[in-house]
Amino acid sequence: MRLSELSKQSGVTTATIKYYLREGLLPPGERVSATQAEYDESHLRRLRLVRALIQVGRLPVATAREVLAHVDDESLGRTIRLGAALWSLPHGPEPDEEAPETAVARHEVDRLLDRLGWAFVQDLGSLDPVHRALVASMATLIRLGYPCDIEYLVGQARLMEQVAVHDLDMMESYPAGAEQVEMAVASVVLYEPLLLALRRLAQEEESARRYGL
Amino acid sequence: MRLSELSKQSGVTTATIKYYLREGLLPPGERVSATQAEYDESHLRRLRLVRALIQVGRLPVATAREVLAHVDDESLGRTIRLGAALWSLPHGPEPDEEAPETAVARHEVDRLLDRLGWAFVQDLGSLDPVHRALVASMATLIRLGYPCDIEYLVGQARLMEQVAVHDLDMMESYPAGAEQVEMAVASVVLYEPLLLALRRLAQEEESARRYGL
Repeated sequence: MRLSELSKQSGVTTATIKYYLREGLLPPGERVSATQAEYDESHLRRLRLVRALIQVGRLPVATAREVLAHVDDESLGRTIRLGAALWSLPHGPEPDEEAPETAVARHEVDRLLDRLGWAFVQDLGSLDPVHRALVASMATLIRLGYPCDIEYLVGQARLMEQVAVHDLDMMESYPAGAEQVEMAVASVVLYEPLLLALRRLAQEEESARRYGL
Repeated sequence: MRLSELSKQSGVTTATIKYYLREGLLPPGERVSATQAEYDESHLRRLRLVRALIQVGRLPVATAREVLAHVDDESLGRTIRLGAALWSLPHGPEPDEEAPETAVARHEVDRLLDRLGWAFVQDLGSLDPVHRALVASMATLIRLGYPCDIEYLVGQARLMEQVAVHDLDMMESYPAGAEQVEMAVASVVLYEPLLLALRRLAQEEESARRYGL
């Protein structure tokens, strides 16, 4: 399809599409003449992801470009490719290495991963920005004096294991390669708010069940 | 305890404590002389929550004050008091009532709540800001052309029901009244990042299990 059709089907203005092309967020179409290029389904899909990252996830253009470079890197194995794409997304605060509670939090996270038997992420340790984000969140709890009860966390983590199984099953319902990695990235940006809203609604429902009004 | 002791035990400077007192975020201590007041455990706890809301949750002072007013409102039943406190927290974007996908999203949310049998939140409908946030997130998915597969959502929501059971069990391990509502508010601000980090780690672990590296 031509640029105008790509714009119509995606609901993105041609000016914005040209901007994404210039910034390298969208691969160029196939040149068919000196002034025209031909786009396909993969452009439509990529455009959808770029909007998710930039308009919804509010990622800076440079970060979005980095995420997309990993999505497209076919030289990587599936887990590493997925990991590299997800790791370039923002992850919240880094742990404060000067603070004494960070060491305590790191020890607690280690104990938790041990209990869970999550050997892959335990081996990665603080190489993984998500691991660091977990340590930082735990350190905040400790600093403020809130409990980080290991039994509570093990229980919630076991449920997150099942959430992840649903997530990967959904991902696998897409054709292999780039499209699956695209879905995984989108799922972080687009489905996290949805999941949190469901948790809050479930709390309201459970509260009404237990206590009435 | 005196102000200096409250500062020492909480790790919050006396200047900041005085600021919180002036802004009505912390109830005044019991006057023991013209220049001195006495503080207790409830001040220590409240200070912890104020820091969670302002320093971690980055809530504006006015919003934090509103949340705390609901936490303290003993005239309300437990579910309503909890709801009122949680509803005054920020909830992400509101649905765009002009957009055609919002009507579709509202219908999908209704279908989802019906399937789940969450009658309490379904009755509240868009009175509930969390319900509105769910509609807004769903509308974004639809607008960008991402699937909002009802079976996937039902599956995740069932898991969130179990997450909520753990949440309320933890809340109930605290003495009744204000302290429980305080924990529930803190759990939104402090435990959500933790839960999301656990989901992402679980995805990494599950990916390594399924695909190797």
